[in-house]
Amino acid sequence: MTYTIQQIADALGAKAVGDTTLRIAKLAEPATAHADDLALAMSPKYAQTLSDGAALAAMLWPDADWQGMGLKAAILPDRPRFAMSGLTRMMDPGQGFETGIHPSAIIDPAAQLADDVTVGPLTIVAAGAQIGAGSIIGPQCYIGTGASIGKNAYLRDHVSIGARVNIGDNFIAQPGARLGGDGFSFVTPEPSTVEETRKTLGNRGDTKAQQWARIHTLGSVTVGDDVECGMNVTVDSGTIRDTMIGDGTKLDNLVHLGHNVVVGKNCL
Amino acid sequence: MTYTIQQIADALGAKAVGDTTLRIAKLAEPATAHADDLALAMSPKYAQTLSDGAALAAMLWPDADWQGMGLKAAILPDRPRFAMSGLTRMMDPGQGFETGIHPSAIIDPAAQLADDVTVGPLTIVAAGAQIGAGSIIGPQCYIGTGASIGKNAYLRDHVSIGARVNIGDNFIAQPGARLGGDGFSFVTPEPSTVEETRKTLGNRGDTKAQQWARIHTLGSVTVGDDVECGMNVTVDSGTIRDTMIGDGTKLDNLVHLGHNVVVGKNCL
Amino acid sequence: MTYTIQQIADALGAKAVGDTTLRIAKLAEPATAHADDLALAMSPKYAQTLSDGAALAAMLWPDADWQGMGLKAAILPDRPRFAMSGLTRMMDPGQGFETGIHPSAIIDPAAQLADDVTVGPLTIVAAGAQIGAGSIIGPQCYIGTGASIGKNAYLRDHVSIGARVNIGDNFIAQPGARLGGDGFSFVTPEPSTVEETRKTLGNRGDTKAQQWARIHTLGSVTVGDDVECGMNVTVDSGTIRDTMIGDGTKLDNLVHLGHNVVVGKNCL
Repeated sequence: MTYTIQQIADALGAKAVGDTTLRIAKLAEPATAHADDLALAMSPKYAQTLSDGAALAAMLWPDADWQGMGLKAAILPDRPRFAMSGLTRMMDPGQGFETGIHPSAIIDPAAQLADDVTVGPLTIVAAGAQIGAGSIIGPQCYIGTGASIGKNAYLRDHVSIGARVNIGDNFIAQPGARLGGDGFSFVTPEPSTVEETRKTLGNRGDTKAQQWARIHTLGSVTVGDDVECGMNVTVDSGTIRDTMIGDGTKLDNLVHLGHNVVVGKNCL
Repeated sequence: MTYTIQQIADALGAKAVGDTTLRIAKLAEPATAHADDLALAMSPKYAQTLSDGAALAAMLWPDADWQGMGLKAAILPDRPRFAMSGLTRMMDPGQGFETGIHPSAIIDPAAQLADDVTVGPLTIVAAGAQIGAGSIIGPQCYIGTGASIGKNAYLRDHVSIGARVNIGDNFIAQPGARLGGDGFSFVTPEPSTVEETRKTLGNRGDTKAQQWARIHTLGSVTVGDDVECGMNVTVDSGTIRDTMIGDGTKLDNLVHLGHNVVVGKNCL
Repeated sequence: MTYTIQQIADALGAKAVGDTTLRIAKLAEPATAHADDLALAMSPKYAQTLSDGAALAAMLWPDADWQGMGLKAAILPDRPRFAMSGLTRMMDPGQGFETGIHPSAIIDPAAQLADDVTVGPLTIVAAGAQIGAGSIIGPQCYIGTGASIGKNAYLRDHVSIGARVNIGDNFIAQPGARLGGDGFSFVTPEPSTVEETRKTLGNRGDTKAQQWARIHTLGSVTVGDDVECGMNVTVDSGTIRDTMIGDGTKLDNLVHLGHNVVVGKNCL
C-alpha cells in the first residue's frame, strides 16, 4: 500500500508542496530514510540529519524551507506532532489478525457477540459476556462471565477480562493486560499490629501473630470509552462497588490499579 | 440468592436488631444503597451518608443508634472490619467457572488429579503433576512437570506453575501469576567489573567486556498453605534449593520474588 | 542420571582430588547435603557448614584443605563462581517439555519452521513467522505475524512475540514475557498542559482539557543473540524504527522497556 504526498496531506488536512504525486511506501527517521520513504523531520534539529539519508520528501513544520533542504516534496502541517497521529494511523501495518470467529475459540452459547466481531484462536468467551460491533478480540484471551465490552474494541493476545467487568467503546488492550482480579484485602480476627500501631502512634501493645482472613471482592471494574491498557497491566475489582477508569484514560505497561480506585478522564 | 438479616447475622455470629426478616440481595455503600441492599456503614463517618441512599438495613458497630438513623434493621458485629470477611464470602458471586474437566483441557496421562478437581478450558497439566481434592484450576493455565498443588486451590486464568513447584493447601492465584521461572543469575569467565569494583572499593582495574554465562536453576519453589498470589506476580525458582513462601503469606499484584528468597508466615 | 566426580571435573576443566569415582546424584547446599550430593562450598564461610550435612564430596576453591574437612573427594576449580555455570547446566532437569509439534498447536501454513523445532501445546504461530533450527517454543505462546526467531531459542509458556519482532539466536524467554506491544505515545490536538508548562517554565497559560490522540506504532523490536527476558517482561515496539536490544543482554522479571529504547550489549 503506497500513498502520494497529496493523499497523505489531504488525509491530515495539511499543506502539501512540491511534486505531490511522489509515492510513499513507509515512514522513516531522516538519517536512515530511503528514496520512497517519507522522512519525519518535524523540527530543525531532525531536519539537519536529512542529508545523511536519501529521502526525497519529508514531513516538516509550517514555514520550513523544504527546497533549501534539497527535497522534491514536503508536507507542512500546522501542528506536526499532532499530524503524527493521523499519519501513523494511515501507515499502521497492524498485527495481521484474521477476521471472523476462529474455529478453535470457545464461545459459550449464552455469550452475545455482535455480527462482525472477530474472536482469535484459543480465546474463551464465557457465559453472559457481551461484545459490541466492530470489536476484535485477539488470540488466547479470556473474557469472563457477564463481562461487557463495547464497540470497536481491540484486544491483543493473552488478555484477561474478569467476570462482570464493564468496558465502554474503543477499548484497546495490549498483550497480557488483566482487568478484574480480586482485590488485595485482608483482615485479622483481632486488631493487627498495623492497626494497633496506627491507633496508638507507635505502641504495639500486646498484639500477637494472627492469620489473615480474606475480604472477598464483590464489585468489578467499570471502564469508560477510549481507554487503553498496556502490556501486563493489572486492575483489581472493587470490594463493594466497581473500580472506575474514566473516559480517555491510558495506562502504560505494568501499571497496577488497586481495588476501589477511581481514575478520572483523559489521565495519562 | 437472597438472605434475611437474621441469616446473615447468624452466619457472622453477630447481633441482629429490628425487622430481622428483611431480605437482602446484595451489599452496597451507604450513599448508593437501594431498599433491598445491606448498607455497609461500619463507622459514624459512613453512617452519615446513609440518608443519601435508600437502605432499610445496614451493618454498623456494636452500640450504634440504628433507629436514630431511620433504619428498619441492623447487624451489630463486635469487630465490623473482621465481619466483612465472612459477609463478603457469603455474597461472593465468583467467576462462574464451570465444574469438571473441560474437554479442551490437555491433561497428561501421568498427572494425578483428585476425583473432584475442576480443570478449565485450554489448560495444560503436564506429566507427573498432582492436584489435590477440591481444587479449581481456571482456564488457560499451565501446570508444569512434577508440580504439586494441595487441596482446595483456586487458580484463575493464565496462571503458570513451573516444573516441580510444590504448593500447600488453599492456594489462590490471580490471572497471570507465575511461579517457578528460572532465577536471574549470571557469571563472567573472569571477575566482572562489578566484582572487581566491590573488592577494591572502586578501582575497576583492567577488567574487560565479557559475555555472561548462565547459572542454571536446579531448585524450584515451595509454597506453604493459605498463600495467595496476585495478578502477574513472578516468583523465581531457587538455584540449588527451593525459593520458599511461608504459610498464610499474600503477595499483591506484580510482586517479584527473586531466586532463593525465603518469605516467612502471614506476610502481607 | 548420575555423574562421577571425575566426569564433572572433566566437563568443567577443573581439578578433581580424592576418590574421583564417587557418583553424584545432585547438588546441595553444604548444611543440607546427603551422602550422594555434591556440596557447593566455594568459600570458607560455606565450608564451615559442611559438618552440618552428610556430603562426602564438595566443590571448593583452588587451595582448599578438602581432607581437613573430612571429605572423600573434591572438585577444585580455578574460578568457582564461573564453574557454577557449567555445573548447573549439566545438572539442569529442565521443564520436561516434549519435543516435536504438539497436535493442538496452531501453525499457519505460511509460517516457516526449521525441521527440528518444538512447538508446545496450544501455541499459535502466525503467518510469515520464522523459527530457526533447534528452537523450543513452549506451551500457550503466541508468535505473531512475520516475527522471526533465530536458532536454539527456548521459550517457556505464555510468551507473546508481536508482529515483525526480529530475534537473534539462543533467545530465552521466561513465562509471560511480552515483546512487541504498541508504544505508549499520545498527542493532543492543541499543545497540552505538559507541553505548555515545559515551554513556559511553569505557566500553564490557557490550556484546556483535551482528548488524547494515539500515535500508532509502526516499528517493532530487534533483539540480538544470547538475550534472555524474565517473566512478565514488557518490551514495546518502536514508533518508526525498531526498539533495539543488543547481543548478550539479560532482562530480569517485570522489566519494562519503552518504545524506541536502545539497549546495548551484555547489559544485566
